[in-house]
Parts: sequence; C-alpha cells; structure tokens
Amino acid sequence: SLCPAAPPMLYPNLAELENYMGLALSSEEIQKNLFPDSSTALTPAGPLPGQLVAPLSGNNAGLRRAEIKPGVREIHLCKDERGKTGLQLRNIDQGIFVQLVKANSPASLVGLRFGDQILQIDGKNCTGWSSDKAHRALKKASPEKIVMVVRDRPFQRTVTVHKDSTGHVGVVVKKGKIVSLAKDSSAARNGLLTHHYICEVNGQNVIGMKDKQLMEVLAGAGNVVTLTIIPAVIYEHMVKRLSAGLVKSSMDHSIPDL
Amino acid sequence: SLCPAAPPMLYPNLAELENYMGLALSSEEIQKNLFPDSSTALTPAGPLPGQLVAPLSGNNAGLRRAEIKPGVREIHLCKDERGKTGLQLRNIDQGIFVQLVKANSPASLVGLRFGDQILQIDGKNCTGWSSDKAHRALKKASPEKIVMVVRDRPFQRTVTVHKDSTGHVGVVVKKGKIVSLAKDSSAARNGLLTHHYICEVNGQNVIGMKDKQLMEVLAGAGNVVTLTIIPAVIYEHMVKRLSAGLVKSSMDHSIPDL
Repeated sequence: SLCPAAPPMLYPNLAELENYMGLALSSEEIQKNLFPDSSTALTPAGPLPGQLVAPLSGNNAGLRRAEIKPGVREIHLCKDERGKTGLQLRNIDQGIFVQLVKANSPASLVGLRFGDQILQIDGKNCTGWSSDKAHRALKKASPEKIVMVVRDRPFQRTVTVHKDSTGHVGVVVKKGKIVSLAKDSSAARNGLLTHHYICEVNGQNVIGMKDKQLMEVLAGAGNVVTLTIIPAVIYEHMVKRLSAGLVKSSMDHSIPDL
Repeated sequence: SLCPAAPPMLYPNLAELENYMGLALSSEEIQKNLFPDSSTALTPAGPLPGQLVAPLSGNNAGLRRAEIKPGVREIHLCKDERGKTGLQLRNIDQGIFVQLVKANSPASLVGLRFGDQILQIDGKNCTGWSSDKAHRALKKASPEKIVMVVRDRPFQRTVTVHKDSTGHVGVVVKKGKIVSLAKDSSAARNGLLTHHYICEVNGQNVIGMKDKQLMEVLAGAGNVVTLTIIPAVIYEHMVKRLSAGLVKSSMDHSIPDL
C-alpha cells in the first residue's frame, strides 16, 4: 500500500521538509512516512479501541442529520429548482467553511450556518481545496442529494447572559461587533469580550443585520440570552471578498425551529 | 438602587454613546439603563427558570473545583512559600486570561492552563482590568486561599485524530504551529487547520516545547490523539510581550492526572 514514486501531497506544499517530524528525511523516507492508506473515511481501516464508525448514508431521501462524533454531522443537501444550494464557501487555513447561507435556500433548510466547516462533499475530503474547487464540486453534484460531512462552527462559541432589571445584557454593539461591556452587567460577569462579532441570538442568525435590528432581536429575546460569538480577527478574515450587500440582503435570518 | 450622578462605566469607555442600543440617549437615560444591581454574583438576584446558583466557597482549605455552568468553574489557589502563585495574566479584549503557568507552582497544581479566562478573583469581576491590576489583586490576596472563577480556555478547541499505519497523524509543525496537512491523513480527514498552534497533546501542555520534543510527545501518545489547538492570530496576541525564554524555561509541561 505504499506508493513509491509520487512525492507526498501536503496542504500547502512546503519548499523544504527538512524539519518534518524533527528529522532530516530523504524523499524516500518522506514518502514512506506520509503515504497512509488512501481510505477517505473519517476513521482508519481496521478496528481501534473506542473508534467511531461513520454511519453510511443509506437510501433516505430528503434531509438527514447523523452525528458522527461530537460536533461533526452528516447532512444531505438538495438543489433548488434553479440548481442552486444557496451556499457560499471559503477556504480558510486549508479548510472549507460556510461563508454565506442564503435565506429560503436548501442550505438554510438543512441548518447550515456561517462558520460551519465542510469536511467532506460526496465522500471527498475538502482539505486543501480552493473556494473555486469547492463550488465546482457543488455545481457538478447530483441535484437530488449532496452528502456533506460538517463540523459545527469551530471558530464560534456561546455565552449565556441574563438581562438585568431594566432588560439589558450590558453590551454595546457597533456594526455587529461588541465594542464595550457595561460594568456590573451580566455580560461583564459572564466574561463576554470585546472585538467579537455576535453571530446569533438564541440560535437566530444576526450577521448582516443593522445594529438597530440586532438590538430589537436582543430586546425581544427573553430574560436568558445565549449569544454565539466569533473573534473579530477570524470573522473579518472569513468574510473577506464577500460583498457587504450580499451579506445584508441575502443571509438567512430565520428563527430556528426547536 | 440607581446612582444618579456618576456616568456609567463601560469597558472600554466610549467617546460617543449615541448608538447605544440603537437609540439616541441622554446621559440621564444612559445612567438609568446601564446601572443594574451592583451584585457581583454570576447570576441575577431572584430565581429564574433553569438558573444555576454559584456555589459558595465554604470553609474548605486546599483545592476545590466546582462547576458553576458548563466550562465555568470555581477554584481555590494558594501561594507558595515565596508568596507566588506561578500565574501570569494578560488582558485580552477586556477579559483577563492566563498567559503562563509555571511548572510546579500552585497554579499548575489547581489545573490552570494557558488561555483560561479568569472571570473573578476573590469575588471581584475582572472585566476591564489591566494585566497590572490583575497581578496586584493576586499579590494582595490571602496566601492561604485565592478564590477564582475560571472559564475553560474559550479560544481553544480539541480535535481527535488517529495515527495511520506508520504512526503519523499527518501534521507538519514548525515552532509549535501547524503549517501543513498531509493528504489523506487523519489530520486532513478530521479537518485540522493550518495557522493553528498546538497547545496540548492528550491534555499535556506542549506550548514552549521545541518541535522535536513536541513530535516525541506525539510519537509517544498512543493511536488516538486529542490535540488542543488555538488560532495563530489569537495565540500570537496572547503571548505578546511574554518573553520567549520565560515560555520555554518556565511553563508547566507535566502530564496531567486523569
């Protein structure tokens, strides 16, 4: 199962590999060390203690979510009548991420969200793909069913806060970003941070909303508010070259089903 | 319980507050809206459905860990015979974070780790504190017991990978940072990303290790390896002005007790 001739593929390719694994390796040794089984499954061939086996997709039409490991699930996506998924993807750090989910699209229907990482499309691992390659894969995929393996928003996290007696959580938001925290507020007590964008309020996507609308969502949210946040440096990198108009006009802001 | 005269304290102070909550507010309205109860508890006064009550620290000497909410725990820290905690803290985004945990120190003993967020020191919320203020609080705290409320490493996450038949996970690491992923490796299949630092291997801190030593830890780790990673942009910000020599020489690299 070793492939003797081709050099190993790395994402990205490195000009020099002399420090790989701390050893000076000849190209023969590199090939020997870097060519594992060509299985594309999430787990290696053969049983290992505690190994999770990825469930096979079976014959189910429509939507299906199956958790493969914590935070990683398999979903089935269809295309709409125009052959679109409503999904825009971006390469970040050699991974493929959801950059945009259009409202009322197949992607919104299966619960894909900004910041989700796409690990596989139709059985192929996405590591090292360009955004273009990922979109081409979507384009040529079957309109009836595209199988994706997705990791839930690895760059985001949630913080739950409580409104005070005047109904505020204690954040000052500008253009979706937390810029200030009120002393002695629930936001301060719970260690919310500045330089973070609010992605969701109680699971509802607020990216692309005007601040006024975001505040209205906050005001209507009930006493216990779970905010999904992402560091600004990462958010700003993820939305690079995504037209601001597209974000504001197209993004799915529907209230999620429980 | 409203304080009529003093302006609200925000972290950071904003020159203009006209967009606060999307309304143009007079300073009177701001005071009314921003001065909640001065409780420093994590939860507001009065019962709420599903409310978690922070456990009181009681009379226990020594260490105690109590989970207050998921990922948030209370710990008791003592000082060593030289009056030190072995903890170095840093202000990031108006929060206080652990920047360094010295080996064989009280901080390492209670399981504090690089990247942990300190929400409270001795009942006082740390939001908006400078690093100096946080260190002063540690310095003047009782040597017998310092009560801290800690959020587990909000900027880090874990990815579990499996070694292939030749014993490799498929990452190329330089100075602790993942710079490349091998095609068809477990690292690729599991969506590990470049531009991330490896903080831990199976719970053992590897920050500050030479790459050779990190690879030895990986090699000795067994077939299933859980890596704790942090985005490079965040890591590099967190270690700013922390002497590299201090990181290499002092940081705790002990293998954690299970």
